Amino acid sequence: MTALIWSPFANKEQAGDAATTLLRENLIGCANMMPIDSVFQWQGEIEQGQECGALFKTSADLLDQAVCRLEEIHPYETPAIAGWKCDSAAAATAAWLGSIGQPGE
Amino acid sequence: MTALIWSPFANKEQAGDAATTLLRENLIGCANMMPIDSVFQWQGEIEQGQECGALFKTSADLLDQAVCRLEEIHPYETPAIAGWKCDSAAAATAAWLGSIGQPGE
Amino acid sequence: MTALIWSPFANKEQAGDAATTLLRENLIGCANMMPIDSVFQWQGEIEQGQECGALFKTSADLLDQAVCRLEEIHPYETPAIAGWKCDSAAAATAAWLGSIGQPGE
Repeated sequence: MTALIWSPFANKEQAGDAATTLLRENLIGCANMMPIDSVFQWQGEIEQGQECGALFKTSADLLDQAVCRLEEIHPYETPAIAGWKCDSAAAATAAWLGSIGQPGE
Repeated sequence: MTALIWSPFANKEQAGDAATTLLRENLIGCANMMPIDSVFQWQGEIEQGQECGALFKTSADLLDQAVCRLEEIHPYETPAIAGWKCDSAAAATAAWLGSIGQPGE
Repeated sequence: MTALIWSPFANKEQAGDAATTLLRENLIGCANMMPIDSVFQWQGEIEQGQECGALFKTSADLLDQAVCRLEEIHPYETPAIAGWKCDSAAAATAAWLGSIGQPGE
């Protein structure tokens, strides 16, 4: 089955670099990136900042491994990386993501 | 309970057409669309391209049916369509999405 | 474990105000906001409108409470608020979101 991972980065270059690494290491099938405005609390103050959100698509079998690897390569000291398994996917999507890293893929 | 479906399209028109079909066929309650930059691997090369991501809101009962129908109407040969059931929803949201396709809705 | 909540608002100010309230009340760790185009059905007509989508990050333990509070403060009469628990998270993310509202946090 399919799984998704959400993680913000400082900018599109950082997100793209992480996606490229995870693609080359056969841990994801693709990534979708989008500009976001983030609201967070830092030392008691509410702050806003621009980031780049990235949604990575992988398989449920690879989810933990992809999240761990993303934590290793993420430029942030305390990255927000959250992944979840899906309950339903198009047959073509499940076949494609299920074949990640398989010989001849 | 509520469910969500994520699927990228080539552009906003394609995403909007799919949303309109699923709305008319009482398979979703609404769709949220956003411009995205995608990173993927094609014949061994890492490539980037602009797409339109769409997040469809439906009910857990309709999830599989909506994903199947979306695969039928999606313009891509290998579409990425992934859906997941939610664990929590506002009462108004659950009532609204739970009433999709019900008589008098 | 980590959890995510998706909810559209009329604009970024509304989304930011909701995020600020939930942050101050220790119900979320942060929020990511993005411009979206929504497609929905209103009195039988398919309509489009611009909104601001917000993705809130919290812990699985706080999910229901955060969704309920968001429903109370959301400016819409029938808000779309859907939350889901994640299956995997970076260690730093789980520790950070797990500490929301804890003394000394």
